[in-house]
Amino acid sequence: MIYPPSLENLINSFKKLPGIGEKNAERLALAVLDFKNDDVEAFANSLLEVKNKVERCHICGYLSEGDTCSICQNEFRNHELICVTEDVKSVVSFEKVGSFQGVYHVLNGLISPADDIGPENINLQSLEKRVEQLKNPELILALKSTIEGETTTLYIQKIFENKKVAISRLSYGIPMGAEIDYLDILTLDKALADRKQISS
Amino acid sequence: MIYPPSLENLINSFKKLPGIGEKNAERLALAVLDFKNDDVEAFANSLLEVKNKVERCHICGYLSEGDTCSICQNEFRNHELICVTEDVKSVVSFEKVGSFQGVYHVLNGLISPADDIGPENINLQSLEKRVEQLKNPELILALKSTIEGETTTLYIQKIFENKKVAISRLSYGIPMGAEIDYLDILTLDKALADRKQISS
Repeated sequence: MIYPPSLENLINSFKKLPGIGEKNAERLALAVLDFKNDDVEAFANSLLEVKNKVERCHICGYLSEGDTCSICQNEFRNHELICVTEDVKSVVSFEKVGSFQGVYHVLNGLISPADDIGPENINLQSLEKRVEQLKNPELILALKSTIEGETTTLYIQKIFENKKVAISRLSYGIPMGAEIDYLDILTLDKALADRKQISS
Repeated sequence: MIYPPSLENLINSFKKLPGIGEKNAERLALAVLDFKNDDVEAFANSLLEVKNKVERCHICGYLSEGDTCSICQNEFRNHELICVTEDVKSVVSFEKVGSFQGVYHVLNGLISPADDIGPENINLQSLEKRVEQLKNPELILALKSTIEGETTTLYIQKIFENKKVAISRLSYGIPMGAEIDYLDILTLDKALADRKQISS
Protein backbone atom coordinates (compact mmCIF):
# COMPACT_ATOMS: atom_id res chain seq x y z
CA MET A 1 0.00 0.00 0.00
CA ILE A 2 1.47 3.25 -1.15
CA TYR A 3 -1.05 5.45 0.68
CA PRO A 4 -2.12 5.43 4.32
CA PRO A 5 -5.20 3.18 4.75
CA SER A 6 -7.72 6.01 5.24
CA LEU A 7 -6.52 7.72 2.08
CA GLU A 8 -6.68 4.41 0.22
CA ASN A 9 -10.33 4.09 1.34
CA LEU A 10 -11.15 7.58 0.13
CA ILE A 11 -9.55 6.85 -3.24
CA ASN A 12 -11.70 3.73 -3.53
CA SER A 13 -14.82 5.75 -2.76
CA PHE A 14 -13.99 8.32 -5.41
CA LYS A 15 -13.37 5.51 -7.90
CA LYS A 16 -16.98 4.36 -7.47
CA LEU A 17 -18.17 7.61 -9.06
CA PRO A 18 -18.87 7.48 -12.81
CA GLY A 19 -16.02 8.67 -15.03
CA ILE A 20 -13.50 8.82 -12.17
CA GLY A 21 -10.54 6.51 -12.79
CA GLU A 22 -7.60 5.53 -10.58
CA LYS A 23 -5.44 8.55 -11.36
CA ASN A 24 -8.28 11.03 -10.99
CA ALA A 25 -9.45 9.45 -7.73
CA GLU A 26 -5.93 9.83 -6.30
CA ARG A 27 -5.83 13.46 -7.35
CA LEU A 28 -9.21 14.21 -5.75
CA ALA A 29 -8.38 12.36 -2.51
CA LEU A 30 -5.09 14.26 -2.17
CA ALA A 31 -6.98 17.50 -2.73
CA VAL A 32 -9.25 16.67 0.22
CA LEU A 33 -6.13 16.79 2.44
CA ASP A 34 -5.86 20.50 1.66
CA PHE A 35 -9.56 21.18 2.39
CA LYS A 36 -10.53 23.17 5.47
CA ASN A 37 -11.96 21.03 8.28
CA ASP A 38 -15.37 22.64 7.89
CA ASP A 39 -15.47 21.87 4.20
CA VAL A 40 -14.63 18.22 4.75
CA GLU A 41 -17.34 17.92 7.40
CA ALA A 42 -19.85 19.66 5.14
CA PHE A 43 -18.89 17.27 2.34
CA ALA A 44 -19.32 14.18 4.53
CA ASN A 45 -22.61 15.44 5.95
CA SER A 46 -24.08 16.30 2.57
CA LEU A 47 -23.26 12.80 1.32
CA LEU A 48 -25.20 11.24 4.19
CA GLU A 49 -28.03 13.78 3.98
CA VAL A 50 -28.52 13.28 0.27
CA LYS A 51 -28.82 9.56 0.79
CA ASN A 52 -31.14 9.89 3.79
CA LYS A 53 -33.35 12.78 2.74
CA VAL A 54 -33.68 12.82 -1.02
CA GLU A 55 -36.53 10.71 -2.36
CA ARG A 56 -38.79 10.70 -5.41
CA CYS A 57 -41.74 13.08 -5.54
CA HIS A 58 -44.91 10.98 -5.17
CA ILE A 59 -46.63 12.98 -7.86
CA CYS A 60 -44.07 13.43 -10.64
CA GLY A 61 -41.04 11.28 -9.77
CA TYR A 62 -38.60 14.19 -9.57
CA LEU A 63 -36.25 14.59 -6.61
CA SER A 64 -37.62 15.97 -3.36
CA GLU A 65 -36.91 16.04 0.35
CA GLY A 66 -40.48 15.16 1.25
CA ASP A 67 -43.55 13.60 -0.33
CA THR A 68 -43.84 16.21 -3.05
CA CYS A 69 -41.18 18.22 -4.84
CA SER A 70 -40.94 22.01 -4.94
CA ILE A 71 -42.18 22.06 -8.54
CA CYS A 72 -45.38 20.14 -7.77
CA GLN A 73 -45.89 22.31 -4.67
CA ASN A 74 -45.57 25.53 -6.66
CA GLU A 75 -49.10 26.86 -7.13
CA PHE A 76 -47.99 29.43 -9.69
CA ARG A 77 -47.22 26.69 -12.19
CA ASN A 78 -49.70 25.25 -14.64
CA HIS A 79 -50.51 21.79 -13.27
CA GLU A 80 -52.55 20.88 -16.35
CA LEU A 81 -49.46 21.07 -18.57
CA ILE A 82 -47.20 18.09 -17.97
CA CYS A 83 -43.79 17.65 -19.59
CA VAL A 84 -42.93 13.94 -19.71
CA THR A 85 -39.19 13.24 -19.40
CA GLU A 86 -37.01 10.16 -19.36
CA ASP A 87 -35.03 11.13 -16.27
CA VAL A 88 -34.31 13.70 -13.60
CA LYS A 89 -31.50 15.26 -15.66
CA SER A 90 -33.97 16.35 -18.36
CA VAL A 91 -36.05 18.17 -15.73
CA VAL A 92 -32.94 19.99 -14.55
CA SER A 93 -32.18 21.02 -18.14
CA PHE A 94 -35.66 22.46 -18.67
CA GLU A 95 -35.58 24.22 -15.30
CA LYS A 96 -32.28 25.82 -16.26
CA VAL A 97 -33.88 27.14 -19.44
CA GLY A 98 -36.51 28.56 -17.12
CA SER A 99 -39.26 29.26 -19.64
CA PHE A 100 -41.44 26.23 -18.95
CA GLN A 101 -44.22 27.04 -16.51
CA GLY A 102 -45.91 23.64 -16.36
CA VAL A 103 -45.01 20.60 -14.28
CA TYR A 104 -43.16 17.34 -15.04
CA HIS A 105 -43.56 13.63 -15.05
CA VAL A 106 -40.33 11.63 -14.82
CA LEU A 107 -40.64 8.19 -16.41
CA ASN A 108 -37.35 6.95 -15.01
CA GLY A 109 -36.53 5.02 -18.14
CA LEU A 110 -37.85 4.29 -21.62
CA ILE A 111 -39.58 1.24 -23.04
CA SER A 112 -36.85 -1.04 -24.36
CA PRO A 113 -37.75 -4.65 -25.24
CA ALA A 114 -34.05 -5.38 -25.85
CA ASP A 115 -33.30 -4.54 -22.21
CA ASP A 116 -36.48 -6.19 -20.91
CA ILE A 117 -37.98 -2.85 -19.93
CA GLY A 118 -41.70 -2.84 -20.62
CA PRO A 119 -44.37 -0.15 -20.07
CA GLU A 120 -44.99 -1.56 -16.57
CA ASN A 121 -41.34 -0.98 -15.58
CA ILE A 122 -41.45 2.77 -16.06
CA ASN A 123 -43.46 5.43 -14.26
CA LEU A 124 -46.45 5.30 -16.66
CA GLN A 125 -49.38 4.10 -14.55
CA SER A 126 -49.11 7.13 -12.30
CA LEU A 127 -49.12 9.36 -15.38
CA GLU A 128 -52.44 7.85 -16.49
CA LYS A 129 -53.98 8.38 -13.06
CA ARG A 130 -52.62 11.88 -12.89
CA VAL A 131 -54.03 12.86 -16.26
CA GLU A 132 -57.45 11.38 -15.43
CA GLN A 133 -57.86 13.87 -12.60
CA LEU A 134 -57.23 16.91 -14.79
CA LYS A 135 -59.82 18.95 -16.69
CA ASN A 136 -57.80 20.06 -19.72
CA PRO A 137 -54.63 17.98 -19.59
CA GLU A 138 -51.84 18.69 -22.02
CA LEU A 139 -48.78 16.47 -22.37
CA ILE A 140 -45.45 17.47 -23.87
CA LEU A 141 -43.38 14.37 -24.61
CA ALA A 142 -39.75 15.41 -24.20
CA LEU A 143 -38.15 12.07 -24.98
CA LYS A 144 -35.07 11.57 -27.09
CA SER A 145 -35.30 10.53 -30.71
CA THR A 146 -33.93 7.00 -30.33
CA ILE A 147 -35.89 3.80 -30.96
CA GLU A 148 -36.64 3.58 -27.23
CA GLY A 149 -37.75 7.20 -27.13
CA GLU A 150 -40.00 6.82 -30.18
CA THR A 151 -41.47 3.57 -28.85
CA THR A 152 -42.32 5.22 -25.54
CA THR A 153 -43.79 8.24 -27.32
CA LEU A 154 -46.00 5.97 -29.46
CA TYR A 155 -47.08 3.98 -26.40
CA ILE A 156 -48.12 7.11 -24.52
CA GLN A 157 -50.04 8.33 -27.59
CA LYS A 158 -51.84 4.98 -27.59
CA ILE A 159 -52.77 5.19 -23.89
CA PHE A 160 -54.50 8.52 -24.33
CA GLU A 161 -55.87 7.80 -27.82
CA ASN A 162 -59.55 8.09 -27.06
CA LYS A 163 -59.26 10.54 -24.21
CA LYS A 164 -59.36 14.29 -24.37
CA VAL A 165 -55.66 14.90 -23.93
CA ALA A 166 -53.60 17.30 -26.04
CA ILE A 167 -50.24 15.69 -26.75
CA SER A 168 -47.22 17.24 -28.42
CA ARG A 169 -43.56 16.29 -28.71
CA LEU A 170 -40.45 18.45 -28.87
CA SER A 171 -39.62 19.72 -32.35
CA TYR A 172 -36.83 18.06 -34.30
CA GLY A 173 -34.47 20.13 -36.41
CA ILE A 174 -31.08 21.78 -36.62
CA PRO A 175 -29.64 22.89 -33.27
CA MET A 176 -29.29 26.68 -32.89
CA GLY A 177 -25.94 27.88 -34.26
CA ALA A 178 -25.00 24.54 -35.81
CA GLU A 179 -23.04 24.40 -39.07
CA ILE A 180 -25.34 22.81 -41.65
CA ASP A 181 -22.52 20.91 -43.37
CA TYR A 182 -21.58 19.17 -40.11
CA LEU A 183 -25.08 17.86 -39.38
CA ASP A 184 -26.03 14.21 -39.78
CA ILE A 185 -28.32 13.17 -42.63
CA LEU A 186 -31.25 12.17 -40.42
CA THR A 187 -31.39 15.51 -38.64
CA LEU A 188 -31.15 17.42 -41.91
CA ASP A 189 -33.83 15.24 -43.49
CA LYS A 190 -36.13 15.85 -40.52
CA ALA A 191 -35.44 19.60 -40.57
CA LEU A 192 -36.37 19.67 -44.25
CA ALA A 193 -39.59 17.69 -43.76
CA ASP A 194 -40.62 19.75 -40.70
CA ARG A 195 -39.74 23.08 -42.31
CA LYS A 196 -41.67 26.07 -41.03
CA GLN A 197 -43.33 28.52 -43.39
CA ILE A 198 -42.26 32.07 -42.61
CA SER A 199 -44.12 33.95 -45.36
CA SER A 200 -46.74 32.96 -47.92
CA MET B 1 -33.25 26.15 -6.48
CA ILE B 2 -33.64 23.37 -8.99
CA TYR B 3 -32.33 20.63 -6.68
CA PRO B 4 -33.41 19.73 -3.13
CA PRO B 5 -31.21 21.59 -0.58
CA SER B 6 -29.14 18.59 0.50
CA LEU B 7 -28.33 17.73 -3.10
CA GLU B 8 -27.43 21.37 -3.75
CA ASN B 9 -25.00 21.18 -0.80
CA LEU B 10 -23.40 18.02 -2.16
CA ILE B 11 -22.99 19.63 -5.58
CA ASN B 12 -21.24 22.58 -3.92
CA SER B 13 -18.88 20.21 -2.08
CA PHE B 14 -17.98 18.40 -5.28
CA LYS B 15 -17.35 21.76 -6.96
CA LYS B 16 -14.63 22.52 -4.39
CA LEU B 17 -12.54 19.66 -5.82
CA PRO B 18 -9.96 20.63 -8.43
CA GLY B 19 -11.06 20.18 -12.04
CA ILE B 20 -14.72 19.55 -11.13
CA GLY B 21 -17.03 22.14 -12.67
CA GLU B 22 -20.76 22.78 -12.25
CA LYS B 23 -21.94 20.18 -14.76
CA ASN B 24 -19.57 17.51 -13.51
CA ALA B 25 -20.47 18.18 -9.87
CA GLU B 26 -24.15 17.73 -10.72
CA ARG B 27 -23.41 14.45 -12.48
CA LEU B 28 -21.39 13.12 -9.53
CA ALA B 29 -23.96 14.21 -6.92
CA LEU B 30 -26.77 12.53 -8.85
CA ALA B 31 -24.65 9.38 -9.07
CA VAL B 32 -24.40 9.32 -5.26
CA LEU B 33 -28.22 8.91 -5.16
CA ASP B 34 -27.75 5.50 -6.82
CA PHE B 35 -25.00 4.40 -4.41
CA LYS B 36 -25.70 1.69 -1.88
CA ASN B 37 -26.17 2.99 1.69
CA ASP B 38 -22.98 1.28 2.81
CA ASP B 39 -20.97 2.89 0.06
CA VAL B 40 -22.22 6.37 0.93
CA GLU B 41 -21.39 5.84 4.60
CA ALA B 42 -17.94 4.52 3.70
CA PHE B 43 -17.40 7.57 1.49
CA ALA B 44 -18.46 10.01 4.24
CA ASN B 45 -16.35 8.22 6.85
CA SER B 46 -13.25 8.07 4.71
CA LEU B 47 -13.51 11.82 4.09
CA LEU B 48 -13.53 12.52 7.83
CA GLU B 49 -10.87 9.90 8.57
CA VAL B 50 -8.48 11.23 5.96
CA LYS B 51 -8.78 14.70 7.41
CA ASN B 52 -8.42 13.50 11.02
CA LYS B 53 -5.80 10.79 10.66
CA VAL B 54 -3.47 11.61 7.80
CA GLU B 55 -0.50 13.77 8.73
CA ARG B 56 3.04 14.32 7.50
CA CYS B 57 5.77 11.81 8.42
CA HIS B 58 8.07 13.54 10.92
CA ILE B 59 11.12 12.10 9.18
CA CYS B 60 10.49 12.49 5.47
CA GLY B 61 7.34 14.61 5.06
CA TYR B 62 5.37 11.91 3.22
CA LEU B 63 1.81 11.02 4.25
CA SER B 64 1.30 8.81 7.28
CA GLU B 65 -1.29 7.92 9.88
CA GLY B 66 1.18 8.29 12.74
CA ASP B 67 4.50 9.97 13.48
CA THR B 68 6.39 8.05 10.82
CA CYS B 69 5.24 6.71 7.47
CA SER B 70 5.33 3.09 6.35
CA ILE B 71 8.32 3.78 4.10
CA CYS B 72 10.47 5.22 6.90
CA GLN B 73 9.36 2.37 9.16
CA ASN B 74 10.37 -0.30 6.63
CA GLU B 75 13.68 -1.74 7.82
CA PHE B 76 14.31 -3.55 4.56
CA ARG B 77 14.82 -0.26 2.77
CA ASN B 78 18.14 1.54 2.45
CA HIS B 79 17.87 4.51 4.82
CA GLU B 80 21.17 5.97 3.63
CA LEU B 81 19.77 6.51 0.13
CA ILE B 82 17.38 9.45 0.10
CA CYS B 83 15.35 10.51 -2.92
CA VAL B 84 14.46 14.20 -2.61
CA THR B 85 11.11 15.09 -4.20
CA GLU B 86 9.04 18.24 -4.60
CA ASP B 87 5.79 16.72 -3.39
CA VAL B 88 3.90 13.67 -2.24
CA LYS B 89 2.77 12.85 -5.77
CA SER B 90 6.36 12.22 -6.89
CA VAL B 91 6.81 9.70 -4.08
CA VAL B 92 3.67 7.91 -5.23
CA SER B 93 5.03 7.79 -8.79
CA PHE B 94 8.33 6.24 -7.70
CA GLU B 95 6.56 3.77 -5.43
CA LYS B 96 4.42 2.68 -8.35
CA VAL B 97 7.56 2.02 -10.40
CA GLY B 98 8.60 -0.12 -7.45
CA SER B 99 12.33 -0.40 -8.17
CA PHE B 100 13.58 2.23 -5.71
CA GLN B 101 14.65 0.67 -2.43
CA GLY B 102 15.77 3.79 -0.60
CA VAL B 103 13.70 6.32 1.32
CA TYR B 104 12.33 9.78 0.48
CA HIS B 105 12.45 13.38 1.58
CA VAL B 106 9.49 15.49 0.51
CA LEU B 107 10.39 19.19 0.22
CA ASN B 108 6.79 20.31 -0.14
CA GLY B 109 7.72 22.99 -2.63
CA LEU B 110 10.64 24.40 -4.58
CA ILE B 111 12.68 27.55 -4.06
CA SER B 112 10.97 30.28 -6.06
CA PRO B 113 11.97 33.91 -5.42
CA ALA B 114 9.16 35.04 -7.73
CA ASP B 115 6.60 33.42 -5.40
CA ASP B 116 8.44 34.49 -2.23
CA ILE B 117 9.40 30.89 -1.45
CA GLY B 118 12.91 30.76 0.01
CA PRO B 119 14.99 27.82 1.25
CA GLU B 120 13.55 28.33 4.74
CA ASN B 121 9.99 27.82 3.45
CA ILE B 122 10.54 24.30 2.21
CA ASN B 123 11.44 21.14 4.13
CA LEU B 124 15.25 21.60 3.82
CA GLN B 125 16.49 22.04 7.39
CA SER B 126 15.23 18.60 8.35
CA LEU B 127 17.04 17.16 5.32
CA GLU B 128 20.34 18.61 6.57
CA LYS B 129 19.80 17.22 10.06
CA ARG B 130 18.78 13.87 8.63
CA VAL B 131 21.86 13.59 6.42
CA GLU B 132 24.19 14.57 9.29
CA GLN B 133 23.16 11.47 11.20
CA LEU B 134 24.01 9.09 8.36
CA LYS B 135 27.35 7.35 7.71
CA ASN B 136 27.33 7.15 3.91
CA PRO B 137 24.49 9.38 2.83
CA GLU B 138 23.49 9.45 -0.81
CA LEU B 139 20.97 11.91 -2.21
CA ILE B 140 19.04 11.57 -5.46
CA LEU B 141 17.51 14.89 -6.43
CA ALA B 142 14.30 14.06 -8.30
CA LEU B 143 13.17 17.62 -8.99
CA LYS B 144 11.68 18.84 -12.21
CA SER B 145 13.77 20.67 -14.79
CA THR B 146 12.19 24.11 -14.39
CA ILE B 147 13.98 27.20 -13.08
CA GLU B 148 12.59 26.49 -9.60
CA GLY B 149 13.71 22.86 -9.78
CA GLU B 150 17.20 23.77 -10.95
CA THR B 151 17.52 26.50 -8.30
CA THR B 152 16.56 24.07 -5.57
CA THR B 153 18.94 21.43 -6.95
CA LEU B 154 21.80 23.96 -6.94
CA TYR B 155 20.94 25.09 -3.42
CA ILE B 156 21.00 21.54 -2.08
CA GLN B 157 24.35 20.91 -3.83
CA LYS B 158 25.65 24.03 -2.06
CA ILE B 159 24.43 22.89 1.39
CA PHE B 160 26.34 19.64 1.18
CA GLU B 161 29.33 21.04 -0.75
CA ASN B 162 32.04 20.29 1.77
CA LYS B 163 30.39 17.29 3.35
CA LYS B 164 30.80 13.68 2.38
CA VAL B 165 27.49 13.28 0.59
CA ALA B 166 27.06 11.60 -2.79
CA ILE B 167 24.52 13.59 -4.80
CA SER B 168 22.94 12.70 -8.14
CA ARG B 169 19.99 13.95 -10.12
CA LEU B 170 17.59 12.16 -12.45
CA SER B 171 18.82 11.83 -16.02
CA TYR B 172 17.37 14.10 -18.69
CA GLY B 173 16.64 12.77 -22.15
CA ILE B 174 14.00 11.46 -24.52
CA PRO B 175 11.09 9.69 -22.84
CA MET B 176 10.84 5.97 -23.62
CA GLY B 177 8.82 5.35 -26.78
CA ALA B 178 8.62 9.03 -27.73
CA GLU B 179 8.66 10.07 -31.39
CA ILE B 180 11.86 12.05 -31.88
CA ASP B 181 10.25 14.50 -34.32
CA TYR B 182 7.63 15.47 -31.76
CA LEU B 183 10.11 16.32 -29.01
CA ASP B 184 10.87 19.88 -27.95
CA ILE B 185 14.24 21.43 -28.80
CA LEU B 186 15.49 21.65 -25.20
CA THR B 187 14.91 17.98 -24.50
CA LEU B 188 16.55 16.93 -27.75
CA ASP B 189 19.52 19.23 -27.09
CA LYS B 190 19.91 17.76 -23.60
CA ALA B 191 19.62 14.20 -24.90
CA LEU B 192 22.37 14.94 -27.44
CA ALA B 193 24.68 16.51 -24.85
CA ASP B 194 24.09 13.72 -22.32
CA ARG B 195 24.41 10.93 -24.90
CA LYS B 196 25.57 7.61 -23.52
CA GLN B 197 28.39 5.65 -25.16
CA ILE B 198 27.27 2.10 -25.90
CA SER B 199 30.41 0.78 -27.59
CA SER B 200 33.92 2.13 -28.05
